[in-house]
Amino acid sequence: MPLPAVTDPVDEGRMRTVYRLSVAGADAAVELAHAIAREQTLEVPPGVGGPEIEARWLGRVEGVREVEEGVFDATLSYADDLVGGGLPQLLNVAWGNVSLMNGVALVDLTLPASLRAALPGPAHGATGVRALVGAEDGRPLVAVAIKPVGRTPSELAAIARAFALAGVDVIKDDHGLVDQPSAPFAARVTAVADAVRSANAVTGGRTAYFPHVTGPVDTLDERVESVRAAGCPGVVLCPSLVGMDVLRALADRSDAPVVMAHPSHAQCGPGRREGIAPEVLFGTLYRAAGADIVVYVNAEGRFAWPVETCQAINARLRAPWDGLRTSLPAPAGGVDADDAARWLSLYGPDTMLLIGGSLLAKDALEGATRRVVEAARMAGGDL
Amino acid sequence: MPLPAVTDPVDEGRMRTVYRLSVAGADAAVELAHAIAREQTLEVPPGVGGPEIEARWLGRVEGVREVEEGVFDATLSYADDLVGGGLPQLLNVAWGNVSLMNGVALVDLTLPASLRAALPGPAHGATGVRALVGAEDGRPLVAVAIKPVGRTPSELAAIARAFALAGVDVIKDDHGLVDQPSAPFAARVTAVADAVRSANAVTGGRTAYFPHVTGPVDTLDERVESVRAAGCPGVVLCPSLVGMDVLRALADRSDAPVVMAHPSHAQCGPGRREGIAPEVLFGTLYRAAGADIVVYVNAEGRFAWPVETCQAINARLRAPWDGLRTSLPAPAGGVDADDAARWLSLYGPDTMLLIGGSLLAKDALEGATRRVVEAARMAGGDL
Repeated sequence: MPLPAVTDPVDEGRMRTVYRLSVAGADAAVELAHAIAREQTLEVPPGVGGPEIEARWLGRVEGVREVEEGVFDATLSYADDLVGGGLPQLLNVAWGNVSLMNGVALVDLTLPASLRAALPGPAHGATGVRALVGAEDGRPLVAVAIKPVGRTPSELAAIARAFALAGVDVIKDDHGLVDQPSAPFAARVTAVADAVRSANAVTGGRTAYFPHVTGPVDTLDERVESVRAAGCPGVVLCPSLVGMDVLRALADRSDAPVVMAHPSHAQCGPGRREGIAPEVLFGTLYRAAGADIVVYVNAEGRFAWPVETCQAINARLRAPWDGLRTSLPAPAGGVDADDAARWLSLYGPDTMLLIGGSLLAKDALEGATRRVVEAARMAGGDL
Repeated sequence: MPLPAVTDPVDEGRMRTVYRLSVAGADAAVELAHAIAREQTLEVPPGVGGPEIEARWLGRVEGVREVEEGVFDATLSYADDLVGGGLPQLLNVAWGNVSLMNGVALVDLTLPASLRAALPGPAHGATGVRALVGAEDGRPLVAVAIKPVGRTPSELAAIARAFALAGVDVIKDDHGLVDQPSAPFAARVTAVADAVRSANAVTGGRTAYFPHVTGPVDTLDERVESVRAAGCPGVVLCPSLVGMDVLRALADRSDAPVVMAHPSHAQCGPGRREGIAPEVLFGTLYRAAGADIVVYVNAEGRFAWPVETCQAINARLRAPWDGLRTSLPAPAGGVDADDAARWLSLYGPDTMLLIGGSLLAKDALEGATRRVVEAARMAGGDL
């Protein structure tokens, strides 16, 4: 069977997905592509719905191409009013039951304007974050994490004070700090927010503190309110832990805080036979759902992701997209403080470099942090 | 380096996880196990937290064993007050950043009583579902799905009427029926609920209709209220689409409906190098989070899962567990109506067989459905 050629562009008004299929040959790939088109839409044997329903609602196989031996990319498209009605349904169609098939990965996703318009995107975006911390000149930004779990609120506050005195843009809670007895949520937020405020008064700087608010979904409103009451302009949230639509609902609020999305439980990695490709999840979906800043695992760190994956995430977060605000990529996870200048040079100024444990391992925290901040200011901007 | 032996049982008060590592050899496996223990807890280089924090909070490698060449199972344990504070934090520690590492899968999870007690489990459980539909004699149960998308509320109601006249226990919305213009949520729920009620009046039966309520998280309360107002005792929800803690919050309500959990977007499959093993996700986590009925993809259907995986899910849903109610397994996804008796014989009476498209493809829907219902009654119970 010859492979059907990919029609590009797909008709307007349709969501387009690309599935990477690990199958024995071209015939099997085409057959699987049609099985997916049915699984994700009608989910009944051929003929049950009748010709009108099939024509209107069945997923369409737009094309299948061979990537390498045993690997094929199938492009499918779906009617927008099948997919409409919110982010969970978008995920249901793009990556619902098909996510239970071994040997199938979701490697691209394109939304028609109708579906894009129903998603909020970042409430503040890269521009809003720059205005918040005084980085309108377009220089790269620096974020740091306070940790580890086990430290008391006053110990965490002391670390945060050193970071703020050194002039970082954002201090975030580690995503492992939740509500443990060593540093309960409310006590931690208050102590760290006070420390950052007093350090800002010393320096005249505008370091922002983002507490981690991931927790039971029925406590989220209360946690976000506590953060606001403590004077903090942003939060850290793990969308894949609480559900991506919980991020969407937060970003959709008229008083949305800045949201830094953390990738815990995102269940993805480059080159896997299954799962969502990292650039689609972090670059497209997290941005559409409303993340102002997207944390992901950097190359050469603890996770061994290739730099090409990082660049692909960056590109999607920064690309023009129907008027949607851009998000700031925040590569993290084993970024060595001494390499800050190299990473900033590679990734360019629209980056928030997130450095955690490597700084905390230094003897002189404030001085070491200051060198990273200086590297970011030296890297300058291109706005 | 000799592999450390697994200590069994792990100290009380600690959560235990088993990660399956695809690595070159034993040394690499032990090194990776220790890296995971650190990644999931302190997430700082050795020494940064100090000895007291390391002793108290660092994840512990309890043992590593070789499964086959290049595959090792590492057993780790975590302090319960690290993990405490809700289901998202449990997932954060068990399967947070480590879910971003290629070549690592979560293949087992054991909760100490302290953590188990903080999770609701099913509000009704298998016993409650049996009481609801009049199956207290212990016979297996039969569920069917109305679909496909594109049908109008009155067309879906006509299908539901035939199913109810045939005496099925549960009629569920297909998870692809959401709020599309062809059958908006409220119109669909009302029409189908009315049809099932009037069919029950004819037969004297107790067929229950479970509408699909997955949608934007901020509409969930309203949808659940509409379902209740329509007189329906249960709902279909996709926990992995909306977030597993959204299920937990629903099951935790004093007026919780029966919840049938559907696996869309669960992103797992048997034998994968990455991801959560299906029996852990569906058998342990969905039950702990509060699913009364757990739909998963059956063997020999469209997904080619081995029957051993299905049996492992069943076993976890039915096992005694600290007083937690049991859940009903609902194998689905390409179950042929003509094979109903065979599946019921294999899986035993504490099963809700879910048949969808195969029945809808029959010429005489009511008669074909009646034969499945009779097979379930013939299979009898063992209570």
